[in-house]
Amino acid sequence: MSPEEFRRQGHAAIDWIADYWAGLDDLPVLSQVAPGAVRRSMPTAPPEEGEPFDALLGDLDEIVLPGLTHWQHPRFFAYFPANSSPAAILGDLISSGIGAQGMIWATSPAVTEVEQVVVDWLAQALGLPEQFRLTDHGRGGGVIQDTASTATFTALLAALHSASGGQARESGVGSTRWTVYGSSQAHSSLVKAAMMAGLGAECVRSVEVDPRTQAMDVTALERLLADDIDDGCRPLFVLAAVGTTSTGAIDDVQAIAEALDGVDAWLHVDAAWAGVAAVCPELRDRLLSGVHLAQSIVTNPHKWMLTTFDCSVLWVQERTALTNALSITPEYLRNPASESGAVVDYRDWHPQLGRRFRALKLWSVLRTYGLAGIRAHIREGVELAAHFADLVVDDDRFELVTERSLSLVVFRLVEGDEATLAAMHRLNESGLAYLSHTVVEGRTAMRLAVGSWRTTRADVDATWAALQAL
Amino acid sequence: MSPEEFRRQGHAAIDWIADYWAGLDDLPVLSQVAPGAVRRSMPTAPPEEGEPFDALLGDLDEIVLPGLTHWQHPRFFAYFPANSSPAAILGDLISSGIGAQGMIWATSPAVTEVEQVVVDWLAQALGLPEQFRLTDHGRGGGVIQDTASTATFTALLAALHSASGGQARESGVGSTRWTVYGSSQAHSSLVKAAMMAGLGAECVRSVEVDPRTQAMDVTALERLLADDIDDGCRPLFVLAAVGTTSTGAIDDVQAIAEALDGVDAWLHVDAAWAGVAAVCPELRDRLLSGVHLAQSIVTNPHKWMLTTFDCSVLWVQERTALTNALSITPEYLRNPASESGAVVDYRDWHPQLGRRFRALKLWSVLRTYGLAGIRAHIREGVELAAHFADLVVDDDRFELVTERSLSLVVFRLVEGDEATLAAMHRLNESGLAYLSHTVVEGRTAMRLAVGSWRTTRADVDATWAALQAL
Repeated sequence: MSPEEFRRQGHAAIDWIADYWAGLDDLPVLSQVAPGAVRRSMPTAPPEEGEPFDALLGDLDEIVLPGLTHWQHPRFFAYFPANSSPAAILGDLISSGIGAQGMIWATSPAVTEVEQVVVDWLAQALGLPEQFRLTDHGRGGGVIQDTASTATFTALLAALHSASGGQARESGVGSTRWTVYGSSQAHSSLVKAAMMAGLGAECVRSVEVDPRTQAMDVTALERLLADDIDDGCRPLFVLAAVGTTSTGAIDDVQAIAEALDGVDAWLHVDAAWAGVAAVCPELRDRLLSGVHLAQSIVTNPHKWMLTTFDCSVLWVQERTALTNALSITPEYLRNPASESGAVVDYRDWHPQLGRRFRALKLWSVLRTYGLAGIRAHIREGVELAAHFADLVVDDDRFELVTERSLSLVVFRLVEGDEATLAAMHRLNESGLAYLSHTVVEGRTAMRLAVGSWRTTRADVDATWAALQAL
Repeated sequence: MSPEEFRRQGHAAIDWIADYWAGLDDLPVLSQVAPGAVRRSMPTAPPEEGEPFDALLGDLDEIVLPGLTHWQHPRFFAYFPANSSPAAILGDLISSGIGAQGMIWATSPAVTEVEQVVVDWLAQALGLPEQFRLTDHGRGGGVIQDTASTATFTALLAALHSASGGQARESGVGSTRWTVYGSSQAHSSLVKAAMMAGLGAECVRSVEVDPRTQAMDVTALERLLADDIDDGCRPLFVLAAVGTTSTGAIDDVQAIAEALDGVDAWLHVDAAWAGVAAVCPELRDRLLSGVHLAQSIVTNPHKWMLTTFDCSVLWVQERTALTNALSITPEYLRNPASESGAVVDYRDWHPQLGRRFRALKLWSVLRTYGLAGIRAHIREGVELAAHFADLVVDDDRFELVTERSLSLVVFRLVEGDEATLAAMHRLNESGLAYLSHTVVEGRTAMRLAVGSWRTTRADVDATWAALQAL
């Protein structure tokens, strides 16, 4: 592709996206294709000769679009949003053009340093305690990871390294009976992390939740900890969920930290979805109270904060716990510059070696929207969800299952589980909107998660009207 | 950003990239900034109000460019190439615009099915044995991962699951003395994988290499295996390197597989850099001989095959080994399609849950270049490296340290280690080209890795002339 051809086709790709967005309103949110349909519409072998990029754009419309469930659709309410905003897309596009690898500082210094600055900006924007920031004399810092699953796994490895006095990375997890804790509503990535770290799923204790709030029952945690310690286990890692997937429940981080007093366990805050909402001062206390007592926290700008996937930010209070757990640089290559924070080699902050210049898209979002714009976006999601919750409360046929959490509403038909599921399926199949389901205390419920940058009050109202009509 | 503004700024971003590429030739390849220089030139706090995207483009030129080592520069020869081609960039741009999550089939079916097709196309293009392909009645399949580090880690987890009869994921790695093998030249991600999987670095046996070829000494492997088995260890995983980082050495996969006869260990082929060269039939035997006996193989289109990072493809012969090792299904992801077994849920094929529509960029590369175009690209890299190796051989002051491997030349000044390093540093500091160094059998050498889509014979000649002048 010549430079001129790249310009022409690049402009066409940008226009394709703008047209795709403009037409989304008229497309069914949920794809209705049968398994294998997309596969069968593609050739079974790769082409021998190249063809113009236009051909691909044509096939996108014909083959790909019918097979897509449209995550950027204004009435996509099923999972937490995966905002891909114009600013982030263009920042990430520039990253592709630069095509630099930032595995260590030296392989392209700006990749590392822009990331250091923007994750620090984000820490400030959210009001995270100072000790998580990468300051010249501090011991903390943040890093962009791909997903919160990876961040939680990484935090678990750092915890293992610290608790084992460095033995885990050399000799393995050994015969110590490590135990890991999260509420029954904690994200499944906690169990997956324990499986991957060689601890096994059985080491994960599922802590009961308060039936009403769905937040961790801290008394139950204390009981489990005491029992496990009596039993010869070694509590290693506790995950506090700030915004669970199912209902948006928020664990009491402060109380959990207090329960861990005297127990040498790592406290990790999984605020994957909800954490970014701390950009609004009026929401901050609810989300971050007690976070200064945690060793690590993760939140995903790639969910609600307008930053194209992947962009999950993990902060730690002791960056050496991460780097010592994951660095494969031999001892004799360690240097004061790295350890002072003057130079950070981010490949030691996550499982992967290679890493893309992801900071550009986050930089672009923070600058293009500004904090004021990001706050307005978050508030809009919260307000639309509050409006929807009001509609639910005002209709006797429906009920809230849990209190609205930020931009998430969990509700059901009073009639029961079957009616609830049936209504949701009919709505989803109509293509007008897309909701997902969950089970809370044995009862089936629908989830409506607002937060797309394209959703308006009219979208929420149309969805409600359709549900009522069903 | 309004739709019109997105179009305008999107076109500007495309043009910025085209201009960046056009000007690369005149920029120093290696950044010369001091630690902290980029950081200090950025504000210490995020902006309160948003600003136009143009402002970011301006700062890219002023703040970011001086801090970049330019991986897309035609005379970037330091590490293996990280090709970010126009076709891939535009494919990935479309993926950002669609912004869909493909964690399971049901969350956006086309994301999964296009990936199934293109990784199968790539398997065909490389001539991989049928059993690695996802056919209707077969047991294999491929998946796009972020990096080969993650792919090797994932393969190790699958091996653990198989060897432990499913116990590892439930009860952890336990007290079995698992052992892992790779040559002394195997990628450091093998040790990191063992550390992360809870096995510990000490379980990794570093197998001697043939001093001349730098390929694994298979007799030494047999000896280690026998000793370990005698000692009560359980050999779990053997990594065969097809194209090592240091010298491009190629282990004899067939011989390694034969050495494993009767040993129930997983054979993983790490062909991260070199594997894609199998698209050329004349190179295939050298690269893939014996691969049908391996359980898994990884190669990275994001290195030499024109596909913007990240795109690493892992194929396995038994996909259930992966999915059984990694699958976890919370309620909100349960759906009829998954439970019928008719579809693939790729989140069970890697550590992460969330996943981007990465197949679009690989699809775009395969279609825009065609196999003929990709072969021409690979052959160009091999020919330029052969040309450079000839220049080295013809100059008495220089010598090859190992035989050229595909597009990688490892050479040195006859004068010795210090002179070699000094020459390389002077060349790198001049900004004309960027090479890296390695140590082979105790002797310092320079590495020149060709493979950028922008490199011409004139670039190689200019680099050689500069080296001679030094």
